Amino acid sequence: MKTKVAYFGESWFNPAQEALRLKGTEAMKANPTIDWDNSFVPIDHQYKGLLVSENPELLADKEWQLATFNADVQGMNNSDIVVAMYDPKMENSDPGVVWELGYAYGLHKAVYVVLPDEVEEDMNLMPAMGATQIMKVSDLATFDFNKGVYAIFDGAVY
Amino acid sequence: MKTKVAYFGESWFNPAQEALRLKGTEAMKANPTIDWDNSFVPIDHQYKGLLVSENPELLADKEWQLATFNADVQGMNNSDIVVAMYDPKMENSDPGVVWELGYAYGLHKAVYVVLPDEVEEDMNLMPAMGATQIMKVSDLATFDFNKGVYAIFDGAVY
Amino acid sequence: MKTKVAYFGESWFNPAQEALRLKGTEAMKANPTIDWDNSFVPIDHQYKGLLVSENPELLADKEWQLATFNADVQGMNNSDIVVAMYDPKMENSDPGVVWELGYAYGLHKAVYVVLPDEVEEDMNLMPAMGATQIMKVSDLATFDFNKGVYAIFDGAVY
Amino acid sequence: MKTKVAYFGESWFNPAQEALRLKGTEAMKANPTIDWDNSFVPIDHQYKGLLVSENPELLADKEWQLATFNADVQGMNNSDIVVAMYDPKMENSDPGVVWELGYAYGLHKAVYVVLPDEVEEDMNLMPAMGATQIMKVSDLATFDFNKGVYAIFDGAVY
Amino acid sequence: MKTKVAYFGESWFNPAQEALRLKGTEAMKANPTIDWDNSFVPIDHQYKGLLVSENPELLADKEWQLATFNADVQGMNNSDIVVAMYDPKMENSDPGVVWELGYAYGLHKAVYVVLPDEVEEDMNLMPAMGATQIMKVSDLATFDFNKGVYAIFDGAVY
Amino acid sequence: MKTKVAYFGESWFNPAQEALRLKGTEAMKANPTIDWDNSFVPIDHQYKGLLVSENPELLADKEWQLATFNADVQGMNNSDIVVAMYDPKMENSDPGVVWELGYAYGLHKAVYVVLPDEVEEDMNLMPAMGATQIMKVSDLATFDFNKGVYAIFDGAVY
Repeated sequence: MKTKVAYFGESWFNPAQEALRLKGTEAMKANPTIDWDNSFVPIDHQYKGLLVSENPELLADKEWQLATFNADVQGMNNSDIVVAMYDPKMENSDPGVVWELGYAYGLHKAVYVVLPDEVEEDMNLMPAMGATQIMKVSDLATFDFNKGVYAIFDGAVY
Repeated sequence: MKTKVAYFGESWFNPAQEALRLKGTEAMKANPTIDWDNSFVPIDHQYKGLLVSENPELLADKEWQLATFNADVQGMNNSDIVVAMYDPKMENSDPGVVWELGYAYGLHKAVYVVLPDEVEEDMNLMPAMGATQIMKVSDLATFDFNKGVYAIFDGAVY
Repeated sequence: MKTKVAYFGESWFNPAQEALRLKGTEAMKANPTIDWDNSFVPIDHQYKGLLVSENPELLADKEWQLATFNADVQGMNNSDIVVAMYDPKMENSDPGVVWELGYAYGLHKAVYVVLPDEVEEDMNLMPAMGATQIMKVSDLATFDFNKGVYAIFDGAVY
Repeated sequence: MKTKVAYFGESWFNPAQEALRLKGTEAMKANPTIDWDNSFVPIDHQYKGLLVSENPELLADKEWQLATFNADVQGMNNSDIVVAMYDPKMENSDPGVVWELGYAYGLHKAVYVVLPDEVEEDMNLMPAMGATQIMKVSDLATFDFNKGVYAIFDGAVY
Repeated sequence: MKTKVAYFGESWFNPAQEALRLKGTEAMKANPTIDWDNSFVPIDHQYKGLLVSENPELLADKEWQLATFNADVQGMNNSDIVVAMYDPKMENSDPGVVWELGYAYGLHKAVYVVLPDEVEEDMNLMPAMGATQIMKVSDLATFDFNKGVYAIFDGAVY
Repeated sequence: MKTKVAYFGESWFNPAQEALRLKGTEAMKANPTIDWDNSFVPIDHQYKGLLVSENPELLADKEWQLATFNADVQGMNNSDIVVAMYDPKMENSDPGVVWELGYAYGLHKAVYVVLPDEVEEDMNLMPAMGATQIMKVSDLATFDFNKGVYAIFDGAVY
């Protein structure tokens, strides 16, 4: 079976994000249409292996900032598709992931948004309409990423 | 003096966003390097003149969603630059504006992020590094948009 | 053997177009370098499964128009190559297919134009020079799409 | 008043096309928002000044074909907007113009389609939805090209 | 008269390059179709104002390298055209300028190559064919950059 | 194992370039992550099979120039990655290869630069920072091209 190399959009700044990230990681590993080994996982490619959460001095380190940004951008450029774990709840909505959704759309790349199962929030219009498909995380493991078919988000937007 | 046609990134979903939007609008009108008359202001181009805030049934109207999304995307395509009012505070960070920052960067377009004066929050790495310049709203009226020079954000990122 | 995911440019508005479409479909299915199962066939992705030919009220339905257009555009974005059935005879030349050829060229994507075997018409300069290769439909089943090599159209143009 | 540099999409292969081309040319010259002197008019930039209609041997001249194609493509690249005279009647629909509409859309460029006044034909979905605005030729002289606002075609499509 | 904002491709690594750079600078300042004040001149935008030639330790400074690279790339993104001083003589051919010519062509941007007057070298095929126009530096001051017309290099290539 | 289709950047204008080209060719053939059969090798796609080195009259043949240029550009467009043999020594630095590196970066494509083993020259900033990875030719046969991860050049730049 064919497999796609994904850029894995993910957030790790609060427990809800972390929970979605871990569920999503398991589902991606289980998905037979994903080439997980060659996929780009941002947390594994922070410059020099340093995470801001453990090295707060990086917050102001321009070399770290530029190198990590460029690596993430190239990670998207060099992947077949973007699959982003995204929780639209205001306190969980990660601007990094949303920026990546817009960037990938601008590159005419297939973009998949993966929501938590229990989400009841509406989504913003731009990431909602700009996605190739939007799904719940419990559907991620069995989704067929080999079919790049546009399906309009059927939830509510603001 | 030369002037630039801007796509004006803006949010109107809570009072803090609304305050920044109004301050930003005044500053853009006052800026001699901005062609405000020909700039694209999203709130003025909602499909058929309908706003979700006043017409909640639009939340689920696919025609309105698609037409408004396409109009916003074309608004960015057809502008010289993107100037976005953006408050990085979690409760004010608008995913629509952040998506637009990523999209415009993907199109190799100049992107300017305008923060509230009083902001003390760090910014996410992607919108911070992906901006041509980042400024406070009180500097907006006098900023020279004719010089598209990259200046790295000097604040902290996460 | 490697296979390519194609966007299948096709027309179904008159018998000559329909005949070419059906011959082309058979050839694509037979071609060992095409991943037909994952290819995008526009007639299978009309919004809500509705065809204008059977539902003439769609001619003026904005939601159907926008959703079908966006789906076709994403179909091209998310495919490896575009393979278009195209008859340059004035009465068979489908503007939809020609628009797609131009769009795909603008995205730096490989574009293959498949002509009817019996065509004696010249081609317009733009779709002719903008194609990676141009072939007759009887050559389609055995063409090797894994080699993306440019070969200038050897017919006449206007 | 600001002016836009246009790529002028035009056809000269039959009398109806020629009539539309001439009307459109007059209207463009009269439009105060168009920089006609610097606009790109394809018929003026055929390679070495040679037209196929007067030099039929060019039909098969590869140097002429490549050079004219590349010049037209650069003409679009280097213009602010594309303004195309287009008659959707089957016998007048020029594949060259339609290809250019698709190409320009792929480049995220503003695309304006100008129809004959008397047209009663439906338009194909792709050029109709992919246009920033569609107008009649009698409205061309007074249209404000400084506002790049998307307006969905209000006619019927197929 | 309208003016274009240029990215000024330039080299300062040997006396021949320096001489061409200075002649080109004077000509650009004299050209009435160039907006020199808003044009991007790389030597003026080295990160923190530091030049490698005077600060050899920058050769290995990753922050300086990344920030200067990103600024140059944005300089091209945010300019109307690229005008590059380029000497094809092997010992004067600057890879930085040539890279920029390729990058700008990939962005569908107008690219002008300015040669020394006395050059007798052939040019490489890629920068030669990928340029909108190629001229001698003595013609630069009076060239009309408002007309983005493709003219094939009439010299020899290898 | 998955394989990538490469555009093979190469030079054959002096013995040092020729030696690197041959070493690189062997390494690419040996690399299990490269699909060499479907990769684009420019020297094999000169228009009509003619090489300038053996047919010096091509230096001034516009048809040959345009057709070879367009074929090389399409070769990059239609490949997964660009792998370029590049010697930064002034007398070996090929402007054609450097132009291709810039072009491919502009298309958001993964770019790999392969240096001679013995190189002691610094690299120019633009091709150095614009590369996904830079390696020595003796590492080429075993490099894993399935992982498109950005790694900043660790040598010196000018």
